[in-house]
Amino acid sequence: MGGVGEEKVELIGFWGSPFVKRVKWVLKMKGIEYEYVEEDLRNKSERLLSLNPVSNRVPVLVHNGKPIAESLVIIEYIEETWQHNPLLPVDDPFQRATARFWAKFVEDKFTEVVRKVLRLKGDQQEEAVKQAIEALDVLEGELNGKKFFGGDKVGLVDIVLGWATIWVGVIEEVSNVKLFESEKHPSLACWMENFIELPMVKEDLPPLRDQLPDYLHKIRKYGPSLLPPPQE
Amino acid sequence: MGGVGEEKVELIGFWGSPFVKRVKWVLKMKGIEYEYVEEDLRNKSERLLSLNPVSNRVPVLVHNGKPIAESLVIIEYIEETWQHNPLLPVDDPFQRATARFWAKFVEDKFTEVVRKVLRLKGDQQEEAVKQAIEALDVLEGELNGKKFFGGDKVGLVDIVLGWATIWVGVIEEVSNVKLFESEKHPSLACWMENFIELPMVKEDLPPLRDQLPDYLHKIRKYGPSLLPPPQE
Repeated sequence: MGGVGEEKVELIGFWGSPFVKRVKWVLKMKGIEYEYVEEDLRNKSERLLSLNPVSNRVPVLVHNGKPIAESLVIIEYIEETWQHNPLLPVDDPFQRATARFWAKFVEDKFTEVVRKVLRLKGDQQEEAVKQAIEALDVLEGELNGKKFFGGDKVGLVDIVLGWATIWVGVIEEVSNVKLFESEKHPSLACWMENFIELPMVKEDLPPLRDQLPDYLHKIRKYGPSLLPPPQE
Repeated sequence: MGGVGEEKVELIGFWGSPFVKRVKWVLKMKGIEYEYVEEDLRNKSERLLSLNPVSNRVPVLVHNGKPIAESLVIIEYIEETWQHNPLLPVDDPFQRATARFWAKFVEDKFTEVVRKVLRLKGDQQEEAVKQAIEALDVLEGELNGKKFFGGDKVGLVDIVLGWATIWVGVIEEVSNVKLFESEKHPSLACWMENFIELPMVKEDLPPLRDQLPDYLHKIRKYGPSLLPPPQE
C-alpha cells in the first residue's frame, strides 16, 4: 500500500468547511505530504465538477490521480492506505465498530442538526437546538472523563466531532442560541481544550476565528446554497 | 480473527426492517451461523434497550456478548471479522472507497428520501419523489449494464440498496406514486431481477410480499413512530 515518498496527494477543499478540516487533520496526523487546492464554492471549477460529478462537493482527495469524495470515506481510505498512526484500533473489530458507530452518531445526530440550527428560525430552530443538546448530553456520557473519544490519543470520533470545537461557539453567536454548557458537559469542555491544543488544530485557528463569523452570518442569511445574490 | 466454529452470533431484528435484511443477507452470504431474535418494536425488550441504549433500534448484532448497532457499521464489522467471501474488493483501497461512497449515496440520497415518500403527503411528498427519481437516475448511470454494483458478484452497494428490490414496489403502491420505471432504468431493472434470484433473498420473499403492504400502509397512516394508537 505504498509509502509516502512517491505519492501525489491533493486535497480539494474550502477554508470554511468542517468536512475539509477533518481530512486535513488526518493527513497532518499521519504526516502525509499533500497539496491543498482551495475551491471557490460560488464558482466551482471544472476540475471539481469532473472529480466529484455526483455531489460537486468538497472535500475531494486526489491520490495519484484517483478522486475520493465524502469526508468519512476519505478518512477510511487514508487509514487503509497509510497505516501508521492509526485512527482506529488495529486488530480489534469490535472497538473499530464502536468508533464507527459513534462517528455515525456525530454525523447524523449532531452535525446535521447543528447545520439546521444555523439555517432555520423559530420553532424549527428550537427543535434543532433541543436535538443538538440531547446529542451533546449523549456524547458527554460516552466521553465520561476520557481525554479523547479514542482514549489517550485522538481517534476517528475526535476527528469527526473536532469541528465543533471551532464552529459551535460561532454558530451559537450567529444564531443567538446556546448549545454547549461547560457545567452540563464537563468532559466535553476538557475535550475541547485538549483538542484545540493539538498542533494540527491550533495552527489553523487564528484565521478561522477571524473569518468564520462573517461567513456563517452569510450562510444564515442566504440559506443552504451559501450563495449571496450575484449583485453583492 | 477466528473461524465460525465456536462463535456465538445473534441478530436482533424485526421482519419489516430493510436494515435488518441487509445484515441477514451478509451473514448468509458468508455462511455464518446465527440465531435470529425477533423484536417487538411496539414493545421493545429490556434486552434491546440495554444492547443499544443510544438509539434502541434494530438491527443489533451480538457477537460473543458484544453488541454492534447500525447496519452499515455491522456490515463493516462482519467483513473485518469473517474475511471470506468479501463484500469489498480486498487490497484495493480506492475500489473500497468507491464502494463506500456509493453505499453512502444510497443511504443519504435514496433510502432516507424513500422513507419520506412513504410518510409525507402533498408538496413534501412530491419533492421527495423527485429526489428519489434523481437518485435512481444517478444509480442507473453508475450501474450502467453491470450485473451487480460489485461487478460480477454482489458487493457492499448491492447489499445496501437490495431492500429496494422488495420495498420500492410496495411503497409505490401504498403511497400512490411512481419511482422506478424499467424503460428509464434498464440496468436497474436487470439488477433487480438478478438480486431477487439470489438464494438468500429469494427464500424470504413470499412472507415479506404477503405482509409488507399492510405494514407499510400502517406506517403511512400512523407516521414515523410506526405505532398505531394503543386501542387498535
